Amino acid sequence: MSGKSIIDMVCPVPFTTSNTVLLGHGSGGKLSNDLVRDVFLPAFGNPELAQLNDQAVVRVGQSRIAITTDSFVIRPLFFRGGDIGSLAVHGTVNDLAVGGALPLFLTAAFIIEEGLPMDVLRRVAQSMQQAAKAAGVRIVAGDTKVVERGKGDGIFINTTGIGLVPEDLNLSADRAQPGDVILLSGSIGEHGIAILAEREGLEFESALQSDSAPLHELCAAILSASTSVRCMRDLTRGGLSSAMNEIAAQSNVGIELNETAIPVRDEVRGACEMLGLDPLYVANEGKLIAIVPPDVAHSVLRAMRANPRGENAQIVGRVTGSLPGLVTMKTPLGTSRIVDMLAGDQLPRIC
Amino acid sequence: MSGKSIIDMVCPVPFTTSNTVLLGHGSGGKLSNDLVRDVFLPAFGNPELAQLNDQAVVRVGQSRIAITTDSFVIRPLFFRGGDIGSLAVHGTVNDLAVGGALPLFLTAAFIIEEGLPMDVLRRVAQSMQQAAKAAGVRIVAGDTKVVERGKGDGIFINTTGIGLVPEDLNLSADRAQPGDVILLSGSIGEHGIAILAEREGLEFESALQSDSAPLHELCAAILSASTSVRCMRDLTRGGLSSAMNEIAAQSNVGIELNETAIPVRDEVRGACEMLGLDPLYVANEGKLIAIVPPDVAHSVLRAMRANPRGENAQIVGRVTGSLPGLVTMKTPLGTSRIVDMLAGDQLPRIC
Repeated sequence: MSGKSIIDMVCPVPFTTSNTVLLGHGSGGKLSNDLVRDVFLPAFGNPELAQLNDQAVVRVGQSRIAITTDSFVIRPLFFRGGDIGSLAVHGTVNDLAVGGALPLFLTAAFIIEEGLPMDVLRRVAQSMQQAAKAAGVRIVAGDTKVVERGKGDGIFINTTGIGLVPEDLNLSADRAQPGDVILLSGSIGEHGIAILAEREGLEFESALQSDSAPLHELCAAILSASTSVRCMRDLTRGGLSSAMNEIAAQSNVGIELNETAIPVRDEVRGACEMLGLDPLYVANEGKLIAIVPPDVAHSVLRAMRANPRGENAQIVGRVTGSLPGLVTMKTPLGTSRIVDMLAGDQLPRIC
Repeated sequence: MSGKSIIDMVCPVPFTTSNTVLLGHGSGGKLSNDLVRDVFLPAFGNPELAQLNDQAVVRVGQSRIAITTDSFVIRPLFFRGGDIGSLAVHGTVNDLAVGGALPLFLTAAFIIEEGLPMDVLRRVAQSMQQAAKAAGVRIVAGDTKVVERGKGDGIFINTTGIGLVPEDLNLSADRAQPGDVILLSGSIGEHGIAILAEREGLEFESALQSDSAPLHELCAAILSASTSVRCMRDLTRGGLSSAMNEIAAQSNVGIELNETAIPVRDEVRGACEMLGLDPLYVANEGKLIAIVPPDVAHSVLRAMRANPRGENAQIVGRVTGSLPGLVTMKTPLGTSRIVDMLAGDQLPRIC
């Protein structure tokens, strides 16, 4: 997990001054943050959006409702372990689930490039339905637009989800406190490396595949194990590093990770070394972190390990009062390094 | 409103057998219907989606919630009377409002083509916010993806909206009954012709502009005037004709329109004659139809006319028991013609 190549990739240019939108603005890293803070928050500013959680929780009538939206522009459309359809369901289900919501309903909106084979669309729709069924949600509204050849790229899918949030539950990225423990549900980097392998035609000895999966049951298990969970976050674009940096910033705390505790599969480690990538920054689609007070850490860990999506869960770090806003990592050599957020993309169009 | 050119445009080829997605599959006409019925309904089939309303109504906890989604791929991004941002808000607010919901919250998801000027994004975001404020909704969650040059087209925006539906209200496109009266809120075709003019550089003597507007207050006025409204529908892609055909099919009734009663502005009529278009098929973004029992038609009409978005409202037709599924129109000559749904597009990427 050497960070050297990454540090080289972190662009020192103050991108906030960019006059045009760059690919990196869609990366989930610093540039994405800049775009949200410079363009969207000033325009749309309201308390729900300003919390910068993966989902907003609003009251509609008597009910507390979580709502989240995501567009999926991944290429290729089909990959080992999933496709754009299942990914679009998992991504949105997971954003609801990590907010503590019971995922209930999805909408699905398609932007299709003219000329897409109808069979591809059918396969994607069927895959969405299977994923929705497995996650216990229903796709209840949809939309289809078609754009000319060369004005799109196969299929883009937006899924927006709503779920029901228990009255007394408040999970939020601004609730981490010094002393809290950071739990990671399993090994990192598999989605990103699987996609990259598909694009570049890399072969692995074992069949590495995307970890794309629904996390609603794992989240429910975590919340059943303790009523004092601070927050959960699924690790998508920007990987573990982005999620940790966002929480450190929003809670105004330090976060200290322990490199030896973070599970990374050999194929992912090998591919990362070969390609000069750092697994901390590589996208996942079926992993989450939970931040909990120290007294419940072990009971939550046990609950995670009892769930198939969390059987390799580990305690990977802790929240500190020093260095607020900063994420650091203890290396196997006993030294410490800063885990910054990437400016732009390691791998564009990963979700 | 001669239909000749339109009839010529209705393609007799059985498009359902197309092996690829065509531009016309995004038209809101027959091809769009085919795509929904052949691909999406079989995959996602559930009672909410099968109703084919512009919004699904679901129960979340104690609340009845309407949910609707729309992606906007209009070009150009800015036009007389609006832009993609305001349109994306109005379109989704209106889909909620015609379902009888009080629009409350929107999500906004952007797919941006690399290289888009940042100022364009800022203008669009600010326009969305102004439109949201005017419509009484808050944009509470968002997402941004960026795709490479040549893989998108400036900006595509998805907005998904949720609103609260009163317990005892049931509006649906399958509720029209013989004898019911069809009310139209104003003149048709302005959005489509304004966009076409912008694209083609046409000049009008007066400043024709898109009718893009929020209809939530007009809908509330209609529902206040009568508790027996059958359904409302905003007239977007595919125009008045698509909306009427969908309701005729879903309610299994005939619909008879009266051509002389349908308001069309002179500029729209002139442009349509010049271009061989029929205003019945041209998109609107601030007009709706309401179907009501005959005994309340005049009180609902008065309520519509008292609202600025409905001041030119007219009774334009009635529901019949004969010719179920068919929309016909009485011409000024006293003859009758069939108002079929277009197969494909008059004007692609109109919303």
